Amino acid sequence: MSSPSAAGGVEPFDAVDVIRSKRDGGVVADDALRWMVDAYTRGYVADAQMAAFAMAVLLNGMSREEIRVLTDAMIASGERMSFAGLGKPTVDKHSTGGVGDKITLPLAPLVASFGVAVPQLSGRGLGHTGGTLDKLESIPGWTAALTNDELFDQLRDVGAVICAAGSGLAPADKKLYALRDVTGTVEAIPLIASSIMSKKIAEGTDALVLDVKFGSGAFMRDVEKARELARTMVALGTDSGVSTTALLTDMNTPLGLAIGNANEVRESVEVLAGGGPADVVELTVALAREMLALAGRPDADVEAALVDGRAMDSWRAMIRAQDGDPDAELPRPRETHTVTATEAGFVTRMDALPFGIAAWRLGAGRARAEDPVVHAAGIDLHVKPGDPVAVGQPLFTLLGHDVTRFERAHAALEGAWEVGADAPDSRPLVLERITA
Amino acid sequence: MSSPSAAGGVEPFDAVDVIRSKRDGGVVADDALRWMVDAYTRGYVADAQMAAFAMAVLLNGMSREEIRVLTDAMIASGERMSFAGLGKPTVDKHSTGGVGDKITLPLAPLVASFGVAVPQLSGRGLGHTGGTLDKLESIPGWTAALTNDELFDQLRDVGAVICAAGSGLAPADKKLYALRDVTGTVEAIPLIASSIMSKKIAEGTDALVLDVKFGSGAFMRDVEKARELARTMVALGTDSGVSTTALLTDMNTPLGLAIGNANEVRESVEVLAGGGPADVVELTVALAREMLALAGRPDADVEAALVDGRAMDSWRAMIRAQDGDPDAELPRPRETHTVTATEAGFVTRMDALPFGIAAWRLGAGRARAEDPVVHAAGIDLHVKPGDPVAVGQPLFTLLGHDVTRFERAHAALEGAWEVGADAPDSRPLVLERITA
Repeated sequence: MSSPSAAGGVEPFDAVDVIRSKRDGGVVADDALRWMVDAYTRGYVADAQMAAFAMAVLLNGMSREEIRVLTDAMIASGERMSFAGLGKPTVDKHSTGGVGDKITLPLAPLVASFGVAVPQLSGRGLGHTGGTLDKLESIPGWTAALTNDELFDQLRDVGAVICAAGSGLAPADKKLYALRDVTGTVEAIPLIASSIMSKKIAEGTDALVLDVKFGSGAFMRDVEKARELARTMVALGTDSGVSTTALLTDMNTPLGLAIGNANEVRESVEVLAGGGPADVVELTVALAREMLALAGRPDADVEAALVDGRAMDSWRAMIRAQDGDPDAELPRPRETHTVTATEAGFVTRMDALPFGIAAWRLGAGRARAEDPVVHAAGIDLHVKPGDPVAVGQPLFTLLGHDVTRFERAHAALEGAWEVGADAPDSRPLVLERITA
Repeated sequence: MSSPSAAGGVEPFDAVDVIRSKRDGGVVADDALRWMVDAYTRGYVADAQMAAFAMAVLLNGMSREEIRVLTDAMIASGERMSFAGLGKPTVDKHSTGGVGDKITLPLAPLVASFGVAVPQLSGRGLGHTGGTLDKLESIPGWTAALTNDELFDQLRDVGAVICAAGSGLAPADKKLYALRDVTGTVEAIPLIASSIMSKKIAEGTDALVLDVKFGSGAFMRDVEKARELARTMVALGTDSGVSTTALLTDMNTPLGLAIGNANEVRESVEVLAGGGPADVVELTVALAREMLALAGRPDADVEAALVDGRAMDSWRAMIRAQDGDPDAELPRPRETHTVTATEAGFVTRMDALPFGIAAWRLGAGRARAEDPVVHAAGIDLHVKPGDPVAVGQPLFTLLGHDVTRFERAHAALEGAWEVGADAPDSRPLVLERITA
């Protein structure tokens, strides 16, 4: 194990003592917890020690104060941005990830059209949930890489920015996240909450709206766990001076009719043009209202901005500012395969997880961080649960360049949807609102 | 992380799945658990993954069958010895470690004097508990290193062997133990039990007696935890075909009057000469009876062998066979400091842990595996709890070469003993006997 020492060479704490404290159900002292994160980041605390600590946190939990200190220590490991000089309020949104979740694309320009700055520092997809940057990279010329100065200028001039988070934000989180991924310690709520919130707080936003998803296509399948995560993050944001609210939303069914990259951009543009699927519009509007309320604009007429072109203007300016051509043709798949109904009735179920996996297998997502994505790949849905269907009516279409991938996509979709005699009960998309 | 692959290059299990299974309170399948140990030993499973798994085991426990499989997998990681060709029964003893615990020294030759083979593969001390090999190395010429052939020959010709365990036994345990030491996962009963028993079973003994200690100077302070460990190890030995019994013994007070190395050898020789402190004799006799009962000699007159010189003859032969001179002068300390009573009454308490730490600080033990020990260093007690004392009567003497170490030893002993008006209630040394 490498042992880069603290300044002066003397370490004030011992990793084994910190691990034991959490292992035995105790509360780790503030300074010991800060030391643990710092010493891990500089390589004095070994991966094995942090892995044992993470497992103890997963099984024994952390107090609200411990989570705050952990988050603060991760923020302190890197740079901290500030938008104080912008002269307008900043508000960000974070989704815990889902299938067909392109909401950031219409949401950021919509909110920005009211004079609010929206700094959406986003990531790429891994596994069955898509990545916002991957979707936008379908647009010819568009770049995710901005310097901090470019980010600031675009926030001032355009209002909306969706770009890659710089590596300077919370490097401790980056290292810890990679470790959790291989040690079975991803699912610890204190670690998830501090991972998400350390980056958002370091980013310097005034306010934050969280879209915490539950259900088959979400990271948290269980609504109770999702609620606990939402409450933990709202408390954490509040404790750190960021006005934070959360919506708990249903991710059992894919959002909208497009799952992929280019097709999700097309659907987003439809919403910005005043159309688009009802669920995408509903969630975009609900999140925009929360964001604008936190930014001091609770009465903003969000729906009007979607219909009258203000949100679309904001979108076009945002895309252009990052070298994208909003009028360019988006990539189309070379191969498609449409699945049709073999019986009449109602669509009773379309399960988000298998649709996400199928789109991923078609090339819309990546298995390893270094893989490229196929922007034209994915799935277009033609119906959603509750819709009536006739025999032979198209249900969905697989999209891709490589026909050899279609078989594995079909395999993922086995049993993933259902047509029955009766229309299913409708479920609310937004289950509840969680505030400090 | 290095990734030496399984033969053929395809790994049949995934470490994250195994970790998650234990994390979520499940029982890990036999073949998955065997794979985890094997893949860790060859370096495919990373330290961080094994550390997370060890923490999950510590917090969620393991079934009796899981512990058996884990132990078996650690045995399978190395060589397995056999004493089948000896023509006499073999029986071993293992102590979980204490302060002043020199019992192996008189015990092995005592039991061997009845025609039973006693292969005591032992370790060195680390921290406040002494190591049997360190004590014996006080004897000029004596060597702990024997080849397997030398070990076999000495067992056949002399009967008793106390030597270093070869590195070929359970290498998985060696690697896992070093990891547990730095990750706060030492105290997991399934891991302690499998660590001890994998080496004892791989060694090939027919029978085993465990001295499981509880109290301030023991690894397990709590009697309940010590009982659980004893039961776990007895079950494990039995499940693996080794006749195993355990004694649960009190380690709140140092054993005997000598704590150190050379002075403990001297005290052992006194016991072999029919004398010695009552508690050392009592425990030596109790363990010898258990060992001889397992070896088919339940009626052996153990006390007689201590008095009539048979045990002493066996000791001298054992020391000579390993190049030691049983008549040599043992090292003496250059500096001593005696503490006397400042009030009259009875010794009511002598706390094993601080006496162990003080002896360690005087040089009798080591802080790191590579440190040498000072054979002459330690503490001689002149009284034990229950003894009456007059003002000015010597209580104990610190022994060492380096006077600068005495202050830190004295600091460890602050509050470690007590003289009061009334004699304390006597406590049984052997609390209970645990059998299959």
